[in-house]
Amino acid sequence: MGRIPPATVKRLCFYLHLLERLREEGKEYVSSRELAYRLGLTDTQVRRDLVYFGKMGKRGMGYEIEKLIKELKKILKIEKPRRAILVGVGNLGTALLGSPFFRERVEIVAAFDADINKIGRKIHGVPVYSDSEIPRVGREMKVKIAILATPPEAVHVIAPVLIKSGIQGILNFTPATIKTPPGVFVHDVDLTMELEYLSFFVEKE
Amino acid sequence: MGRIPPATVKRLCFYLHLLERLREEGKEYVSSRELAYRLGLTDTQVRRDLVYFGKMGKRGMGYEIEKLIKELKKILKIEKPRRAILVGVGNLGTALLGSPFFRERVEIVAAFDADINKIGRKIHGVPVYSDSEIPRVGREMKVKIAILATPPEAVHVIAPVLIKSGIQGILNFTPATIKTPPGVFVHDVDLTMELEYLSFFVEKE
Repeated sequence: MGRIPPATVKRLCFYLHLLERLREEGKEYVSSRELAYRLGLTDTQVRRDLVYFGKMGKRGMGYEIEKLIKELKKILKIEKPRRAILVGVGNLGTALLGSPFFRERVEIVAAFDADINKIGRKIHGVPVYSDSEIPRVGREMKVKIAILATPPEAVHVIAPVLIKSGIQGILNFTPATIKTPPGVFVHDVDLTMELEYLSFFVEKE
Repeated sequence: MGRIPPATVKRLCFYLHLLERLREEGKEYVSSRELAYRLGLTDTQVRRDLVYFGKMGKRGMGYEIEKLIKELKKILKIEKPRRAILVGVGNLGTALLGSPFFRERVEIVAAFDADINKIGRKIHGVPVYSDSEIPRVGREMKVKIAILATPPEAVHVIAPVLIKSGIQGILNFTPATIKTPPGVFVHDVDLTMELEYLSFFVEKE
């Protein structure tokens, strides 16, 4: 499973969210052709991706949505919401804590900030600790994922602390580049890219 | 150009950001193989995608980074930063307004909110208007792109207003589903998906 290429993993996430939407619409089966159409992929690509789950399509009926969702969640290791810490409780961090949709899918067990006005408080139900407590709290809570939403200039201090604290995955909302040793994975979230994607489909002013 | 499939457009955005990073590192040329390796794609896929720019690879040297960046920006219509309005100046909206990185790439000309404590103020230099002024300001400023960061329950009211105001592209940060007529494009940003992608690469707790 570890050998699924990153671009395929990304597509698996898209399949999962689309399948959940189809389930909400009351559908039980979906064809590879519909998945392809809705995600702008080729039919062949979808069928090749879904080989990772074993052959679950039924001739003429397509894939059973419920089964596929379950299988995808297993592969992505999100059968239960992943536990994570949040570092940086500024506007973006607070937005994530305040989003029921995000909180449903990620269990944020602790937050960290450098601002003494925030430390010791609970924000949207999550306790805020001092950055200096990342190693202790991180290890005690056995957390492997950190959501990084600090100012970019704090990253060169915070990232090494996260790595020393047993964090294996960093969701990086800052524009800073993070270098990590093998075994630690960084995923950069770049919201400008989302706007640039949209731009393609909109006429110039 | 309109016929580039959405999945390809997404890859073009990834190429652009990678190329800009390579340029920052002082590189002038890059091979399709390196692009493929860095983005988890196949060599063939990259070369096929780059056909959209005409053949710009030089035998043995690869692609000229500067030229490719310019061409990609043209295709994505972002030679100049796109102009956009922001609807919803809560935590997420404020985070976007306060991000120099985001602001460098998107020109946010006006913001809108329902909160009378925000209306009439400037937040990070951007004037905040009442939601009821979307049609007037949107048309006056000839904006085609809206960034939607309201609470999800406001979307069914705001989205039709945006569409009537001449908006052709909505960057939707809410979990609400937006139905639009032909000619109006919605791009849903789902931050939970980013965490689910990361999850794949991180051992279970």
